[in-house]
Amino acid sequence: MLAFSNSYKNNGAIVINRKINLIIMLEFSAQELSKFMEMHRNIAEYINLNPIQRGGILPDSVKEIVLEWVDGYSICDHCEGVLSEIKDPPIETFIAEILPKFLEIDEVRLTNGAREGIFAILHSVCKPGNSIIIDKNSHYSVFLAAERVGLNVIEVENNGYPEYKILEDQYAEKIEEIKNKSGSYPELAVVTYPDGNYGNFPDAKKIAEICHEYEIPVLVNAAYAIGRMPISARKLKADFIVGSGHKSMASTGPIGILGINDEWKDVIFRKSWRYKNKEVEFLGCGPRGLAVVTLMASFPHVLERVKKWKNEVEKARYFVKEMENIPTVKQLGVKPTSHDLNFFETPIFYEISKKHKRGRFFLYRELKKRGIIGIKPGLTKNFKLSTYLLTKDEINRVLEAFQEIASLH
Amino acid sequence: MLAFSNSYKNNGAIVINRKINLIIMLEFSAQELSKFMEMHRNIAEYINLNPIQRGGILPDSVKEIVLEWVDGYSICDHCEGVLSEIKDPPIETFIAEILPKFLEIDEVRLTNGAREGIFAILHSVCKPGNSIIIDKNSHYSVFLAAERVGLNVIEVENNGYPEYKILEDQYAEKIEEIKNKSGSYPELAVVTYPDGNYGNFPDAKKIAEICHEYEIPVLVNAAYAIGRMPISARKLKADFIVGSGHKSMASTGPIGILGINDEWKDVIFRKSWRYKNKEVEFLGCGPRGLAVVTLMASFPHVLERVKKWKNEVEKARYFVKEMENIPTVKQLGVKPTSHDLNFFETPIFYEISKKHKRGRFFLYRELKKRGIIGIKPGLTKNFKLSTYLLTKDEINRVLEAFQEIASLH
Repeated sequence: MLAFSNSYKNNGAIVINRKINLIIMLEFSAQELSKFMEMHRNIAEYINLNPIQRGGILPDSVKEIVLEWVDGYSICDHCEGVLSEIKDPPIETFIAEILPKFLEIDEVRLTNGAREGIFAILHSVCKPGNSIIIDKNSHYSVFLAAERVGLNVIEVENNGYPEYKILEDQYAEKIEEIKNKSGSYPELAVVTYPDGNYGNFPDAKKIAEICHEYEIPVLVNAAYAIGRMPISARKLKADFIVGSGHKSMASTGPIGILGINDEWKDVIFRKSWRYKNKEVEFLGCGPRGLAVVTLMASFPHVLERVKKWKNEVEKARYFVKEMENIPTVKQLGVKPTSHDLNFFETPIFYEISKKHKRGRFFLYRELKKRGIIGIKPGLTKNFKLSTYLLTKDEINRVLEAFQEIASLH
Repeated sequence: MLAFSNSYKNNGAIVINRKINLIIMLEFSAQELSKFMEMHRNIAEYINLNPIQRGGILPDSVKEIVLEWVDGYSICDHCEGVLSEIKDPPIETFIAEILPKFLEIDEVRLTNGAREGIFAILHSVCKPGNSIIIDKNSHYSVFLAAERVGLNVIEVENNGYPEYKILEDQYAEKIEEIKNKSGSYPELAVVTYPDGNYGNFPDAKKIAEICHEYEIPVLVNAAYAIGRMPISARKLKADFIVGSGHKSMASTGPIGILGINDEWKDVIFRKSWRYKNKEVEFLGCGPRGLAVVTLMASFPHVLERVKKWKNEVEKARYFVKEMENIPTVKQLGVKPTSHDLNFFETPIFYEISKKHKRGRFFLYRELKKRGIIGIKPGLTKNFKLSTYLLTKDEINRVLEAFQEIASLH
């Protein structure tokens, strides 16, 4: 029971200060609260193969400063009204100089994630009822962003099993098709580079050239590329590009980056008629808090690892080769792989699951027993995984685990 | 110079793997990178009076688990496709049980911040060209969210200097006015409870009753209330309510919460036609990462401090009384104050600034010398500050500082 008086009642406006209401509202049992008091992740000792996890691990040097910046609006101590112009911490330099150079694009903003960046572009460039073209390997959130804006989505096909390679030339066909059907060209094209299932790289430059012939701008979703590998928006001829801090830039989440070409500045960065220094599409500020600091602090580390991308591809190819030595196992997607994220067809594990006492959860359990997580529980027929930044020893440990488990057959 | 071969070129698709391009892109000097290697906040020893900072400080017990969860997608280890249904960490319980009870509202979702929650409501409930009514004390981001959706914004006035009290009855007048002018009623009304300049609480319940007579739903922006004081959406008769994790719930950012009444579920939580378990307005998931964990882990602490809200108001009143003992200093806004955020008119500091060698920056410098920050550099005529969770000793230190500085006159 709370002793809560009415003494500072504000002419009845603060109705909730009445004793009776407070008692109802704040009655949580110790048991209800207990699960929020002891939240531990407990995965330090595991090798985590989940592709969304491998690029988001913070380097130790960055972990050292996390607690200094963890409080809510920590980055806003020296803000004069515009997040992207904050000098301490050095957000302005990062956004105005470092990231544009890193991505080879004119202008950059921070967003709450890659999907939020995609939404910002679709919402600024298109109107409800417009059409956009996207590749069939797009992340589900691209469909959702389009649906949120109210757009028609036309998909460019891939060539199906086993490559799932995007048919770049179809961009032209689909553009003509939309024009014939609706009377106008689509407003935007999206290319996923690479996709999150097969790690396929469509020829983004070729697609951009096709679309530009129709004066259609191209958005490259590089959530699995930026921060892992070298990316140049200019060379890909992208008009817009998005990346993900928590997915691929060694940053805590949620945070993303959005690069645009200068010619789109007035559209995407349009200012409020009322608040002349506030950008409407970003609701004034982008992400507020620690995520901005970890994105910046991890950048030197990210830069170094990007330079070593070749090693990551070589490790992935070695891993694929060894996995394919397991009977029936096959990498799907374009071969040889050019990314750390790979998709495997594994009939042998499905066969085992049919007889195993744990059924389809056997693979997850067997891997976990061997210190490996990140394959979705219940999957046996096929799954994706990433070897990004695993040491050669760790890769061999993972391979041995799969080989051992396969021998249960 | 990087040794980067073409050996894994993907039929020319990965144009950026060409040696020459890589070299251009990744050439950052040590000097350019140095400012990201040593980012320290260095404010631990200061008393921070900035109202956006005081409610976002994490308790020590939560800081202890931060590093376990700081990696990008840390909360998604056990996700089965829907963020709000994740059981470990206990996001589902938090969203489905704890927060609805805490706010006394039917359904809750996590957002990337209060403003993102406001945008989600406006974007779901209204169409471009629609009108909404908001109070004149609204946060700038409410105007931006409305502008982003393409809405006409009609403001309910406050009574001006010195109270700036929202004229609740004007909601009815403005509703009629809009109806007469445009032929239809506004789609939504917004109430800021309390506002971020004066800490004024309009009679939200009365406003909701007025709006409900016209069947207009009401969104309560409680970014400065939820997490600081008891709030019941039901008692305020709010249809929607938003709160901010980084502003008032002892959480790292960016994160917010959005509560809605059941009758709006199909509108706000509408699912994708294509991805049946994904909510369109939240792009499938809300905030992904550490912020979710700190919001949950801080909840028991937040609950305790909410119960002690009366003390915070008493401290604020004591502070106001003592400040007003300084010649010419006056609290603006409704009196007596009912919030830790207060606005002061301080002609005495403006007078000093006119003769001081540091000019209008003297106050910032003098306060900083005394271990106090959070008043915007350059302000002397008036400013806002918060005493939230300051100890009595700290409050007296702040008062002494202002008194001493005033004696420079």
